[in-house]
Amino acid sequence: MRPLPIRILGVDPGLRRTGWGVIEAEGHRLSFVAAGVITPDAEQDLAHRLAGVFAGLQAVLAEHAPHEAAVEETFVNVNPTATLKLGQARGVAMLAPALAGLDVAEYAPNLVKKTVVGAGHAEKRQIQHMVSLLLPKALVKSPDAADALAVAICHAQHRGARLRAAAARISA
Amino acid sequence: MRPLPIRILGVDPGLRRTGWGVIEAEGHRLSFVAAGVITPDAEQDLAHRLAGVFAGLQAVLAEHAPHEAAVEETFVNVNPTATLKLGQARGVAMLAPALAGLDVAEYAPNLVKKTVVGAGHAEKRQIQHMVSLLLPKALVKSPDAADALAVAICHAQHRGARLRAAAARISA
Repeated sequence: MRPLPIRILGVDPGLRRTGWGVIEAEGHRLSFVAAGVITPDAEQDLAHRLAGVFAGLQAVLAEHAPHEAAVEETFVNVNPTATLKLGQARGVAMLAPALAGLDVAEYAPNLVKKTVVGAGHAEKRQIQHMVSLLLPKALVKSPDAADALAVAICHAQHRGARLRAAAARISA
Repeated sequence: MRPLPIRILGVDPGLRRTGWGVIEAEGHRLSFVAAGVITPDAEQDLAHRLAGVFAGLQAVLAEHAPHEAAVEETFVNVNPTATLKLGQARGVAMLAPALAGLDVAEYAPNLVKKTVVGAGHAEKRQIQHMVSLLLPKALVKSPDAADALAVAICHAQHRGARLRAAAARISA
């Protein structure tokens, strides 16, 4: 029996720009569904910018109905204020799919790059290039959307191993 | 005309323990409504612990129907991993009242302490003591709930100045 296509949401969270991308994985075949960037109104206060990120992701979840979600583990930044801001956006970005009943996987940035580009250290432009090769139908103009698609691709490659590890934990 | 009592929710966010406290302010008179601590299941993954914080605050908002909310501005921690974790919980803690239509004010920790204790540097125990003096009916057993009530008290004291500043911006 052919496995059903799995729809995966990848998210690259940020308070100014939250990239998102939805792909379908059917065995090893990947296909592009949609991608975009959520840009909350920078004039609003923090709580309402966070609400903007949340509402944007809720709309994506409602429109594209993914089965699973993945978010990049955050580089703990050298700048603590930036780390805090990113954390706030990231919390909201993980909450939206969790409330929709999705499992939310996390992947280290190096693993995402290694999976998509083949090397743990890659420039943003290189990721964008590889994402358009892997998903030819994707018209990815924004690096944030490309990063989000890269996380979704990483999850498509690694979800099997995750599921097996979870099954082993249950049967152990 | 006597001003109506304003119900204020204060939140002290954290991934392990999120303190919350609701007070009523009628002019300068403050009274205790309720307080508690939300402790998400530490066994769950990050996304579901965040969902636990969110669900807990949604329940508080539904039960106590506050008009305004306040959250402490976070100390940008020396430990970046802790800062990121706190940021994630804080994002979710600000989102819940924002989605309920509340304004969410932020106050620097020093201002909260100065307002409640009279000094910018105060120990947790001192805050707990002053909170029980200011809100005699509050049975505050947890320092997290005491901190949340302190933020709510700080907002009660400073919301007038905030409103006047906002009005001045509009009429300018």
